[in-house]
Amino acid sequence: MNAEIISIGDELLIGQTINTNASWLGSELALINIKVKNCQTISDTREAIMQSFDLAFKRSDLIIVTGGLGPTKDDITKHVLCEYFNTKLVVNNEVLKRIEDYFLKRDRVMLEVNSLQASLPEVCEMIPNYQGTASGMWFEKDGKVLISLPGVPYEMKGMMTDIILEKIGKFFQVKALYHKTILTTGIGESFLAEKIKDWENDLLSKGFSLAYLPSTGLLKLRITSPSGEKDEALIDMYFQELTKIIPENVFGYENDVLADVIGQKLRKAGKTISSVESCTGGGIANEIVRVAGSSDYYQGSIVAYSYDLKCDLVDVKLETLNKFGAVSEETAIEMAQGGLKKMNTDFCIATTGIAGPAGGTDEKPVGTVWIAIASKEKIHAKCFYFGDNRQRNMKMTIFAALNLLRNNFLD
Amino acid sequence: MNAEIISIGDELLIGQTINTNASWLGSELALINIKVKNCQTISDTREAIMQSFDLAFKRSDLIIVTGGLGPTKDDITKHVLCEYFNTKLVVNNEVLKRIEDYFLKRDRVMLEVNSLQASLPEVCEMIPNYQGTASGMWFEKDGKVLISLPGVPYEMKGMMTDIILEKIGKFFQVKALYHKTILTTGIGESFLAEKIKDWENDLLSKGFSLAYLPSTGLLKLRITSPSGEKDEALIDMYFQELTKIIPENVFGYENDVLADVIGQKLRKAGKTISSVESCTGGGIANEIVRVAGSSDYYQGSIVAYSYDLKCDLVDVKLETLNKFGAVSEETAIEMAQGGLKKMNTDFCIATTGIAGPAGGTDEKPVGTVWIAIASKEKIHAKCFYFGDNRQRNMKMTIFAALNLLRNNFLD
Repeated sequence: MNAEIISIGDELLIGQTINTNASWLGSELALINIKVKNCQTISDTREAIMQSFDLAFKRSDLIIVTGGLGPTKDDITKHVLCEYFNTKLVVNNEVLKRIEDYFLKRDRVMLEVNSLQASLPEVCEMIPNYQGTASGMWFEKDGKVLISLPGVPYEMKGMMTDIILEKIGKFFQVKALYHKTILTTGIGESFLAEKIKDWENDLLSKGFSLAYLPSTGLLKLRITSPSGEKDEALIDMYFQELTKIIPENVFGYENDVLADVIGQKLRKAGKTISSVESCTGGGIANEIVRVAGSSDYYQGSIVAYSYDLKCDLVDVKLETLNKFGAVSEETAIEMAQGGLKKMNTDFCIATTGIAGPAGGTDEKPVGTVWIAIASKEKIHAKCFYFGDNRQRNMKMTIFAALNLLRNNFLD
Repeated sequence: MNAEIISIGDELLIGQTINTNASWLGSELALINIKVKNCQTISDTREAIMQSFDLAFKRSDLIIVTGGLGPTKDDITKHVLCEYFNTKLVVNNEVLKRIEDYFLKRDRVMLEVNSLQASLPEVCEMIPNYQGTASGMWFEKDGKVLISLPGVPYEMKGMMTDIILEKIGKFFQVKALYHKTILTTGIGESFLAEKIKDWENDLLSKGFSLAYLPSTGLLKLRITSPSGEKDEALIDMYFQELTKIIPENVFGYENDVLADVIGQKLRKAGKTISSVESCTGGGIANEIVRVAGSSDYYQGSIVAYSYDLKCDLVDVKLETLNKFGAVSEETAIEMAQGGLKKMNTDFCIATTGIAGPAGGTDEKPVGTVWIAIASKEKIHAKCFYFGDNRQRNMKMTIFAALNLLRNNFLD
């Protein structure tokens, strides 16, 4: 079967928004063994939408359309859908109720344009949107399916994950491939490939495929088995072998999040954590707090960006700062030890570095970062060099700090 | 005239790589008044490429193709181009020399597959690639142009910027459009549309177009003038009018970032800032620190997640927490005032809320957030209800807090 994605929106065509929806949909569909063969990005005009539907129905069995479902004048997808499927808009009372609740709950006035969002093409099946006011629509025609979804990523993703992916799987009776993903951090793609060469060759010789999926601070390895779940035990064995080759890098599987992996270990051990941050500016705190339930083990953090606050809030000695500089092993250690005491936690992570673009010297170039972690029993400090990009340096430091904690303080 | 982008590559379709090339090309072409009307993303098979060319030549005048020009077996674009334009590959000696130099300079062995990259279709004009081994190709057919470029972003961008954009401008004798984007926060799409209805109708009646571009916490409005820069003064007038209608929401233009807009105001006023965060968990600190040069005005933050740290680090009274709860106006105010004193800044932003998914009650549902901002002279506190999504609640709180500061404390 052929799948196709149609992304509607001038903002995509003129590059004001990067089309992350299409790639997310492509990867989610690939996981249920549906391969997207075509993507179209088109303007939000009647003609462009009609033409894209014609083309898609000619060559594809499943068509997912995103965008153009907002309440404003330039959102015309719903009207074009009515024309294409030769139907009319009717009020869906379930949707109307949900939209009313949506505004009531937020204590906001509901406008007429919002109530218009409860009108849907008569022939479609409504897909509920629990995070916004634009419903999804499922159309069938000659054994083919067209699904229209809002372009807002978290609304679209919520509906896909909660309802649509399963519904697609059933409708097309797709046989799932078996995938398993191992998550690594702290190692580059080419270096990892070299290190696991023999393991990889052995894996490939058994008919599996391996994909390297890199992003900042993270490198996922995905194994795909063409013969479904029956290879599960074999893949598990390969994963255990891989973990033995690079134990310091493998931190989890599938959709695990490093901060969550660490959080679960802390919760289990009944330990608490805090951070004292300079170059990451609250980024470690934020990464920990993004995990729901983190209040079980996370106490708080001090972002000590200025010299003054490093001294006042966490008792770093001014002498240390003057003698070794803010970006030094000595300062990092005093930050971690000071934070441990001030916030009375079992572990404290400290970061201090030159995120850039300014502030680098020959001796300490932009990208130099010291990370120290203190517990009551020991202290561990390490220096990293990440590179020129400020945002990347901050993100790399967060990953490195959390992984340093995992490798040196947690079982 | 119609422009179209064809992106070739399975890695794009299955979402392994996000198609940033298409959006970059769209925005660059928009700047020279060429509007991309269609993007196709296709598989790297002969059939898919031939079909995409046929379709594109039917509806578009300018076609830019990226991808499939590497030295490996799965890169077949060049062969399909030969077939499509009914021509053959011939060695281009200038290119061969450049490829040889490329390997010499990098002290790497040149393979036979690399020398094959010097062979180009006879009918095309070669576009030199100074950063890689795959040349660009310019084809003309019936007054239309097809340009084939490598998919490696920095190679493609280099060739576009150095040579191709100017060449396109000359060939099609294009006249530049004029765009201007206004940035708003703290207002939803439908509510804004209602509020600016008359202004919008007036604008549209003058022949301008208006696009609403929403993302979490942010709503961009882009005006496009079809008659080039001569409308600049008129658009400026419309923007000033709009700012008068929604002054609390408009915070900048084009690519401005809210934390940067605020940072510039703080720097100019010689004022400093800190934050005391609960539900945002360092997110406000992180947003401020992401801006390069923020150490000029940013001192630090205290993330006081636990009751203990709220009391120990920022002197919130335990009595206040017990009587009113952590998520209350009283606690938010004590956090802001405590932070102001402890970190000795001119302003301090405090956040406390129920980010979710757990922790909500009937009285204080998930998404309830109190934000307080203190200066030496005054205190401002406000309650918000955002919704169910933890990550979104944190992001919305960050935007709301920064905008509250802008509206109530900065000129």
